[in-house]
Amino acid sequence: MAQSGGPTAVINSSVCGIVEEALQHGKIGGIYGAVNGILGVLHEELVDLRQEDLSSIRNLRRTPSAALGSCRYKLSERDFNRLLDVFIAHDIGYFLYAGGNDSMDTAHKVARLAAEKKYELRVMGVPKTVDNDLPVTDHCPGYGSVARFNAITTRDSSLDTEAIYTSDTIKIIETMGRDTGWITASTALAKETEDSGPHLIYLPERPFIADKFLNDVKEVYDRLGRVVLSVCEGLKDENGQFVKASTKGIDTDRFGHAQLGGVGDYLVNLISEKLRIKARYDKPGTIQRVSMQCASQVDVEEAYRVGQVALSKAVEGESDKMVTLIRKQKDPYSSDTGLIELEKVALRTRSVPDEFINKNSNFVTKEFIDYSTPLIGGPLPEYARLRMRKLERKLSAYV
Amino acid sequence: MAQSGGPTAVINSSVCGIVEEALQHGKIGGIYGAVNGILGVLHEELVDLRQEDLSSIRNLRRTPSAALGSCRYKLSERDFNRLLDVFIAHDIGYFLYAGGNDSMDTAHKVARLAAEKKYELRVMGVPKTVDNDLPVTDHCPGYGSVARFNAITTRDSSLDTEAIYTSDTIKIIETMGRDTGWITASTALAKETEDSGPHLIYLPERPFIADKFLNDVKEVYDRLGRVVLSVCEGLKDENGQFVKASTKGIDTDRFGHAQLGGVGDYLVNLISEKLRIKARYDKPGTIQRVSMQCASQVDVEEAYRVGQVALSKAVEGESDKMVTLIRKQKDPYSSDTGLIELEKVALRTRSVPDEFINKNSNFVTKEFIDYSTPLIGGPLPEYARLRMRKLERKLSAYV
Repeated sequence: MAQSGGPTAVINSSVCGIVEEALQHGKIGGIYGAVNGILGVLHEELVDLRQEDLSSIRNLRRTPSAALGSCRYKLSERDFNRLLDVFIAHDIGYFLYAGGNDSMDTAHKVARLAAEKKYELRVMGVPKTVDNDLPVTDHCPGYGSVARFNAITTRDSSLDTEAIYTSDTIKIIETMGRDTGWITASTALAKETEDSGPHLIYLPERPFIADKFLNDVKEVYDRLGRVVLSVCEGLKDENGQFVKASTKGIDTDRFGHAQLGGVGDYLVNLISEKLRIKARYDKPGTIQRVSMQCASQVDVEEAYRVGQVALSKAVEGESDKMVTLIRKQKDPYSSDTGLIELEKVALRTRSVPDEFINKNSNFVTKEFIDYSTPLIGGPLPEYARLRMRKLERKLSAYV
Repeated sequence: MAQSGGPTAVINSSVCGIVEEALQHGKIGGIYGAVNGILGVLHEELVDLRQEDLSSIRNLRRTPSAALGSCRYKLSERDFNRLLDVFIAHDIGYFLYAGGNDSMDTAHKVARLAAEKKYELRVMGVPKTVDNDLPVTDHCPGYGSVARFNAITTRDSSLDTEAIYTSDTIKIIETMGRDTGWITASTALAKETEDSGPHLIYLPERPFIADKFLNDVKEVYDRLGRVVLSVCEGLKDENGQFVKASTKGIDTDRFGHAQLGGVGDYLVNLISEKLRIKARYDKPGTIQRVSMQCASQVDVEEAYRVGQVALSKAVEGESDKMVTLIRKQKDPYSSDTGLIELEKVALRTRSVPDEFINKNSNFVTKEFIDYSTPLIGGPLPEYARLRMRKLERKLSAYV
């Protein structure tokens, strides 16, 4: 097995599920992990997971990041042949790859090559992406936890602005999402009352139009005297250009994706210059995707389950497929797993659908709230709200 | 009572301590909170805290931000007279102000004016600042929680880089601190092994020298292939100028302090341009100061206690003083409270002392670790570390 792409709070839970399931099958002789994803296979850096304590394996369920190491690496034609050489050399019969749509493409190509070369290899994709942008599956392991992190921290940060708005008036929260707004949308789960934050949410599924944005901000500011905004790092203008990329020079990763950052800073300056209102921004960055403290228990369990199912289905004879999550019951929430051909998810991206975005393109709909609420694994911690009964005034107004 | 300055995870715990203590004293007829700090007194916006449910008051202990509202407001001469008019109008005998060194100055001036005007008012300062920069007190309520947040999230973020360093090589974590490096220093508590992050820490107590910084980064990069850096938003160059202020135009608050941000972005670009290595940054911003999920239990308790003691000492006849925390015992940690004249803490700032900063000015010392460890209220959650026993290679190296 190998872990790929951006680390998450729960990808190790999938590894735990795979290993614990593999230990149930007598026909599996070795349980190997590749170090740093597919790079570990290429360079024959494999570790023997049977030599780990079972308690360490178990503890992976509450350990964030990627314990085996991860990578973002675009394989060449030649690389694929080498992968097969390594699999053959170590008599590997099952290859389980946890990742997003790039990784599913890699897994699919490995499966195809093995079939061509008549090497019996069963390949299964284990879905993992905080971006929640894999198609077919109802949602992706990793998403529930980043959504819970964003719900909790956006509420905290909104309460901060609510308390100190006479000085710190506008708060921008910049969240992750290269192409889709799923993560940014999850900040809506922080909202408890009509006036509490976030007040505005901007997703990359809609073009960013500065004048409209400034009007939206002004409207909330005039009404409440404060504004909490949540914006996606991947916001694009009407021409499809990123609103701001912060790094110059080395600004694309090995898949050719732009490295983002800086939209928060850009908007702080825009608001300052055009509206003459002081703004600041929070950018939790990679912290949001690996926060175990805010992990969703539903997400931890589902990540475990997709790992477990990937292994057991491979043993049953399935290959070239990814495990999916299917929403079974709404209340109380429960899910099933399914399988889909890797080809149907490889390199494909699922955007936030129209019915989850409001007409003004500046918030999410109730449909999105209904979709995402169960994924964060329970209500947010309860906070005190004081009644704040005012005393009668005894003096004239102070001017 | 009133709350002032930046919200924290535990300032509401101090309010809880004050109210619960006040309820024990028969001679206290009314318990009032000012809305938005001293602004609430100025504008006679006072709330009756006896009309709150006791359970809500109790729940303040686990509610972040500032439930009564806060402010940053520099009082004029005329304002001080108005404060006294409001106190007199509502027969207020005790004024408890929770805040940092600006607020202690305000409280001291209120006490002095009341004495001049022969109005019997007992004024007590309740220490509160995530910046931990009040003098005399061993540490400040609010600090232990932001330190715990930074220890936990820096460890998570470092594990993220450790997993994906073949692609995301350098991570910069920008933490708060306008003038002092206490908060940034606390990221050191994330470090578990010699090679784990953070590898470098830069505090505003030492001038930022770009060439030296780049050499430091290069050295770690050459050794480990990855670097996790923690930097203070308030870093200054040799001329005392902020390394980068992100907002243009409206860039000072009402006390004339510069609003910061942007040092992370600046360093990402510096590293990219000079070392040609891809870097990214996390900037938890205000999230770090109000994260209840990562609050330190020691901090919650001490914040409660300083509120309680401020009230009981005022009833005993003390005035014009701030409650301090005194470290009583190291292991197991325990603390006492003391009192100090407001004049001796007002407007004064305690920097991170020399013995807490290493010789290379790029990390903290063991003395700092010893000082800060008990304040975060217990060890960090335990994570799995796999043995990662490598399989013997069967093929020649892949080049």
